[in-house]
Order: sequence, then C-alpha cells, then structure tokens
Amino acid sequence: MTPSRETPSLLSVDHVLHTIAEDLSRRFAGVFAPETVERYVFESHTALARTAKISSHLAPLTERFARDRLIALAQAKGAAPHEVPEVLLVCVQNAGRSQMAAALLEHHAAGRVHVRSAGSAPAAAIHPHADEVMLEIGIDLGSAFPKPLTDDVVRAADVVITMGCGDACPLYPGKRYEDWDLQDPSDGSLEQARHIRNEIDRRVRQLLTEILPASATPN
Amino acid sequence: MTPSRETPSLLSVDHVLHTIAEDLSRRFAGVFAPETVERYVFESHTALARTAKISSHLAPLTERFARDRLIALAQAKGAAPHEVPEVLLVCVQNAGRSQMAAALLEHHAAGRVHVRSAGSAPAAAIHPHADEVMLEIGIDLGSAFPKPLTDDVVRAADVVITMGCGDACPLYPGKRYEDWDLQDPSDGSLEQARHIRNEIDRRVRQLLTEILPASATPN
Repeated sequence: MTPSRETPSLLSVDHVLHTIAEDLSRRFAGVFAPETVERYVFESHTALARTAKISSHLAPLTERFARDRLIALAQAKGAAPHEVPEVLLVCVQNAGRSQMAAALLEHHAAGRVHVRSAGSAPAAAIHPHADEVMLEIGIDLGSAFPKPLTDDVVRAADVVITMGCGDACPLYPGKRYEDWDLQDPSDGSLEQARHIRNEIDRRVRQLLTEILPASATPN
Repeated sequence: MTPSRETPSLLSVDHVLHTIAEDLSRRFAGVFAPETVERYVFESHTALARTAKISSHLAPLTERFARDRLIALAQAKGAAPHEVPEVLLVCVQNAGRSQMAAALLEHHAAGRVHVRSAGSAPAAAIHPHADEVMLEIGIDLGSAFPKPLTDDVVRAADVVITMGCGDACPLYPGKRYEDWDLQDPSDGSLEQARHIRNEIDRRVRQLLTEILPASATPN
C-alpha cells in the first residue's frame, strides 16, 4: 500500500459520495432528513461495491440506485406520486430473468405501470445471454444493472413477482405476491434464453391484463 | 395464496420489526432520528432475508445486526464510546475466514480491541468446518451469523482486514487496510480448515502486537 498514491483517490470517492448526498438531500428536502439521505447514498454504494467487479464506475450507479430507493420510500410514505401500479420483479442475480421481465413489462405497459427489479444475490453484471436475446427483439438492457433487494422497493410495490429467489422477499400485507417458476438463462444456451424470454413475455402480458383496467390492456 | 392463513403471520413480522425499531429508537434517542432507526431495522431484516435460508428466526438476528450497525454509526459520528481499536474483518461469505479471525482476535485481545466481521456475499450459515475446527480449540462460534458488509461498520473501523473479497470494501482515508491471502475453508477438507485456522491465529497474534501498545501485547 502506497499512501502517497492512494490518498487522492480515497478522498475523491468520499467527496463524490458526499456531493451526491448533498444534491439528493436538496431534492428530498422536507421529505427525508439529510442524515437519512446520506445513509442511503453510502449504504447504496457499499451494497453495489460488494458485488460489482469494477468499482471505478460506481458513483453514477450509486446516484441512480440511492435516488430510486428514496423515491420508493417516499412513495411508501405517501410523500411522492404513486399514480400507476408499482411492480417489483425479483430474481436471484438481477442479471437475467428479472431484468428481462422489467424491460418487457415497461415495453408493453408503455407508462401505465412503473417497474423496479432487484436480486437476492446480485451478479456483477447483466448476463450476456439476457442482453443478446432482448436485443433480438429490439429492447436494449444497456443502462440496467444488478441491484440487491432492499426493503424500500418492496414497501413501494403494489405487485411483487418473485422468480427463483425463495423466501428472500419480505411479505407485507396489502400487496399482490406471485411466484413465477422460470429457468435461469445463465444456466443454459442462447436458444434456452430465447425460450425463457418468450415465456416471460407471455406472463408479463397476462399480468398486465390482470393489473390494468380492462379498457387499458393491450390487444 | 390463502389470505386467511397468511395474513396473521404477515402482520406479525411487520409488527415485530416495528417493535424492534421503537425499542432501538428509544435507545438511540438524541443520536439518531426514529426514521433512521426504522430504516436500519427494516433494511437489516431484508439484507439478512436475502441470503438466510431460514427466515423464521430472523427477528432476533435483525435486532442484533441493526443495533450493532447503529452503534458503529454512532461511533463514526463520535456519539458512542470508541475506547479500544475497532477492527473489521471482511471475507466473501462471512462464514469461515472472517468468523474464525473475529473469534480468535476477540479471544487473544480479551477486551483490548473491539471486533466486527462481514462478508461481500454472505452465506446462509457458518460453515461446519469453521465451527468444528474452532470448537477443537475451545472457541464456540455458536451465536455468530453471516452478515453483509455495510458502510457503517467500515466507517467505525480503525483497522480493516480483507480476505479474498477483492475491492468489495470501501476505502476511506485514515484507516489501516490490510489484505490477508488465505484459502477458503469451505473449499477443502477439515484438515485444511485446521491449517487455515492456525494461519489466521498466527496473523491475528501478529496484528495485535502491531495495533496494541507494546506493554499490552500477549507473550
């Protein structure tokens, strides 16, 4: 360890996270105390660093993850808009099934639901098979990233769909829980990943017909 | 899903966690806002539920984990006693290496340091080999449990020892970081676990001579 080389970068990570916390504190002023926001930023960073292989690009992901968690918590408190059904999709790695389901649900819902996804044991990155079979149908997972399941996003959800993650997701009253029995695309071939994508697509369309008013469902 | 059977237990988990949050809020009154404490309790519960295989005994572990994280955060803020060096031991699963190191360090330090441990990808339970080889030398890991690495325990630490968890641990200025290159006892035989235990014991004794005043080190 060479302190003279490491100190600048150590200071700058801490500094960047504090700057993110200050910005988000301003955004959530009147809803959350700065202490809560700061904890969200630093714990979100550590949570992503635990499983991400490359830690150099974590600051922008930390900002997105912490901001979305704070929005979820604000929704659960009734302090942020909750105008469409909130759907949470949870699998193990948040790298295949739940990411494909989130992207397909967003695509078909076209703004009529809001979607989040998470994993019980997040992978370092989106699985290449999931990326590829989604691109084949014109959907880019480019900005998605694996995130651990947190309490706030469960609290904000109206509908929670679990896929292979056992009892990892807390059960709270007043929510619709559903478990989808699906293979994991990281275990098989690209052709198997296509089948899983198609099965998820079928289930996502079915879910939409059940959670949206009849007049608003797709043909 | 049978709501009539599930509702009581759903309500009771939520109720138990709220009761824990109220108790800890009283304990940390004047240090942390009730909002912060409540978030710590619920997020600690979800974090443990992500990886624990059995979710029925999580409430007592949630209380211990949340309480210790709040103490660590209070220490980092200067709002709780920090009278002896704080040492954090981090491995991947918090099921073998970091648990053995924590127990050995506590044993040899006999109150002269305070020890915490965590993992970047916590296992469901302590590894049986770790349990067994520690019992052979009269140390019981019985009440230990795998926990994810969190920001608060890093902030509270004076010394951070990492073992095989890559860049998972945030680097903050003003702390002593050390990486120990050790095999994982979950990969090998019981005899290999004994060797790892002995190697950890040697390193822990060496660490103590370095972080404690000369007059206080063991013979």
